[in-house]
Amino acid sequence: MPSFGLRHRRAWASLFSQLLRPSGLVCIREVHFHSQGTRDLSPQQMVIREKILDMVVGCFKRHGAKRLDTPAFELKEMLTEKYGEDSGLIYDLKDQGGELLSLRYDLTVPFARYLAMNKVKRMKRYHVGKVWRRESPTIVQGRYREFCQCDFDIAGQFDPMIPDAECLKIMCEILSGLQLGDFLIKVNDRRILDGMLAVCGVPESKFHAICSSIDKLDKISWNDVRHEMVAKKGLAPEVADRIGDYVQCHGGVSLIEEMFQDSRLSQNKQALEGLGDLKLLFEYLTLFGIPEKISFDLSLARGLDYYTGVIYEAVLLQTPAQAEESLNVGSVAAGGRYDGLVGMFDPKGHRVPCVGLSIGVERIFAILEQRIKTSGQKIRTTETQVFVATPQKNFLHERLKLISELWDAGIKAELLYKNNPKLLTQLHYCEHMGIPLVVIIGEQELKEGVIKLRSVVSREEVAIKRENLVAEIQKRLSES
Amino acid sequence: MPSFGLRHRRAWASLFSQLLRPSGLVCIREVHFHSQGTRDLSPQQMVIREKILDMVVGCFKRHGAKRLDTPAFELKEMLTEKYGEDSGLIYDLKDQGGELLSLRYDLTVPFARYLAMNKVKRMKRYHVGKVWRRESPTIVQGRYREFCQCDFDIAGQFDPMIPDAECLKIMCEILSGLQLGDFLIKVNDRRILDGMLAVCGVPESKFHAICSSIDKLDKISWNDVRHEMVAKKGLAPEVADRIGDYVQCHGGVSLIEEMFQDSRLSQNKQALEGLGDLKLLFEYLTLFGIPEKISFDLSLARGLDYYTGVIYEAVLLQTPAQAEESLNVGSVAAGGRYDGLVGMFDPKGHRVPCVGLSIGVERIFAILEQRIKTSGQKIRTTETQVFVATPQKNFLHERLKLISELWDAGIKAELLYKNNPKLLTQLHYCEHMGIPLVVIIGEQELKEGVIKLRSVVSREEVAIKRENLVAEIQKRLSES
Repeated sequence: MPSFGLRHRRAWASLFSQLLRPSGLVCIREVHFHSQGTRDLSPQQMVIREKILDMVVGCFKRHGAKRLDTPAFELKEMLTEKYGEDSGLIYDLKDQGGELLSLRYDLTVPFARYLAMNKVKRMKRYHVGKVWRRESPTIVQGRYREFCQCDFDIAGQFDPMIPDAECLKIMCEILSGLQLGDFLIKVNDRRILDGMLAVCGVPESKFHAICSSIDKLDKISWNDVRHEMVAKKGLAPEVADRIGDYVQCHGGVSLIEEMFQDSRLSQNKQALEGLGDLKLLFEYLTLFGIPEKISFDLSLARGLDYYTGVIYEAVLLQTPAQAEESLNVGSVAAGGRYDGLVGMFDPKGHRVPCVGLSIGVERIFAILEQRIKTSGQKIRTTETQVFVATPQKNFLHERLKLISELWDAGIKAELLYKNNPKLLTQLHYCEHMGIPLVVIIGEQELKEGVIKLRSVVSREEVAIKRENLVAEIQKRLSES
Repeated sequence: MPSFGLRHRRAWASLFSQLLRPSGLVCIREVHFHSQGTRDLSPQQMVIREKILDMVVGCFKRHGAKRLDTPAFELKEMLTEKYGEDSGLIYDLKDQGGELLSLRYDLTVPFARYLAMNKVKRMKRYHVGKVWRRESPTIVQGRYREFCQCDFDIAGQFDPMIPDAECLKIMCEILSGLQLGDFLIKVNDRRILDGMLAVCGVPESKFHAICSSIDKLDKISWNDVRHEMVAKKGLAPEVADRIGDYVQCHGGVSLIEEMFQDSRLSQNKQALEGLGDLKLLFEYLTLFGIPEKISFDLSLARGLDYYTGVIYEAVLLQTPAQAEESLNVGSVAAGGRYDGLVGMFDPKGHRVPCVGLSIGVERIFAILEQRIKTSGQKIRTTETQVFVATPQKNFLHERLKLISELWDAGIKAELLYKNNPKLLTQLHYCEHMGIPLVVIIGEQELKEGVIKLRSVVSREEVAIKRENLVAEIQKRLSES
């Protein structure tokens, strides 16, 4: 996808160049981590955060999504039996009278609840918001008890795999656009996974437990996973070995064809449905120009209960200087198809098929923040364009009149909140804050009906008639 | 402030004209109110909400503020003894092990906590976020248990009243910019209020209770307030009458002068300090061109514990057709000076003087939503610029290739998720969603290496060489 990469990389670079300045500004503060597992975001961090969100939301809008918002808490009963083993991580509110409430755990369940409650049968929406999980926070991995998610979902009955392919396209656009380095999106299907477990001889009652073992394959070796399956979860060794043959497979379209021919898997109806859909999915991904970014991976399991079809997870690949293999640095986006969730909220069980994705903002943020820190680059935390200064005492009134004119003309302007600041203090403030222009008013200027306009970088000064000042500033700002 | 009003009204009108379309779109849904006192915001509502936030944040940035974010919950102990009688409205989290936590009640206390925790002595910041209060929700007034606040605050030791005047200027800019109609900002000072109660003969132990009675003067008559003071709160009738003489006073600079001469008030040191500051404040407000928007009002009390100096509250004025008097439709913005709050979070009690304001987004939102509903105007909820259509069967692959090119070029594009949609269905979708351009690909176009570009409004169609399509679309979009 040559044109995409080029264009968006450029857009991002230009965004970033605005916020990276060579010198003189305050460095990013260390993360301030609270004992309750949350953190404040400093102004420097907020600048990075907002650039990420702007790019993500820009992509969601490019794909025609509407924005939705739901409350931070839901009725507790809405969240039960949706998250499998992780349900213990839900934050409950204290019973202070009235309904029992819980903080939302993700943005998917509130979306499904919204669709069912409003009888919406079709919707392409995005949602940016915080979610809360009572995890033991591991700061190094960028995992907090409060974190921001950006979700995009397509609800409705459509022809197979078209919305699913668009979700993967969106993940590619965002990860390329953010310039996080090389990445790969692992794809699997819940039906293939279930079919595989069935044909390997796993009893259905153990599907869930074995899936969570498989899910660990990106962290521990197959031998350790096999040991867990056999020793802890009571699987017959030959069953585990059969699973082992499958879950170590990953590849592209040719692997799908191979699985279609597989003597065991081809006997399972569910698995065949999943394989058929994946084949179609790869066809569309090829038209989108992104097949090489996608890997069919039989080890991908995903923990959440509500997925019913295709599932996916994007990982960043780092090529360490002295290693040949790429190194997996963790998931930054994920999603899948959940055709049954809306029906769980509908009194009559009416189903609305859905597919979607979630961008893991915190991890992306951690990577970009670290990169900026390492580079020693500084960030502007304000957008102030003009500073109003005076070299003289008793000029507060004139400064206030002047800055008021600038504000009223829509110009971003500041002054020092002092009656009689020194000129040097005022100019230092501009350099420190990266403010490009200074307007200076003193007795001489007042007498002549002019204002001095100074460029902070070049230190050049010109006198401009007061009535032309706003126009001149706007001209300079539009040129820079 | 002629130039300000003009410019910003125009900016807002242009923003709004983008989102108001004459016909064919879905109307704003009825507010969906949950039993727990919260609500979802539909895509239509989110468009209005975001336009409001854009304007508010734009103003905050124009005044040089940095953005900050803090977690939704704080340690419970951080919130105690900050909100007076309203502390019972704080939402607590269930004790699931670990610290006792509460949802934040406003954005001011987290800001003060942040300053103390990070030993920040000086900061101009804004914060947009949700806060939660366990109030009995009265839907008609736009009061919810979860609501959005936009706060701007200036922390630091500065010369008197300069930051305070800027806060009032900001409130004027935002309320003018949002075109909510005529408004008035009531101003008072906690020291004047306390001084007044003292010289009237109210015992200090009753200051708080008498203040909350005074606070009701914008809802009930002075006679009813007087009755409450005397009958319920045990004030001597002559004391109440003395208070009555004061709290019915409101006006401009001349009222400040009058109070300086007041035989009782001029004996009180605190009151004199407050009056001195208000006089200076009015001087600066005159330089900002907004003195006629401000009213010194001795009945303004404000409930929160933490205010120490100037306090203010903006109310919208509606002039009913058949009445002479302006009608108060409630507070839409408020704030004041709180010089002691940061010190409460500092182990050594180091003080950082602060002044700030909070914009009541929900009420403003309710007014604008109602206005749009009444006008029958429709809102676009997506920004899609181009729709990819085909008149033929079996053209999904071509449509996917084409839309992928558009996305990669940064163009906002959609198609129907159907293998073989009817052309009429596709064109109807564009009209329904307000999409301005359609690109059409069929057998003829494929053969000739062209794409048909159609304007939805004029229905004009032109054939464009495939390689020029993106450039042509971008040209058309930049012209419109």
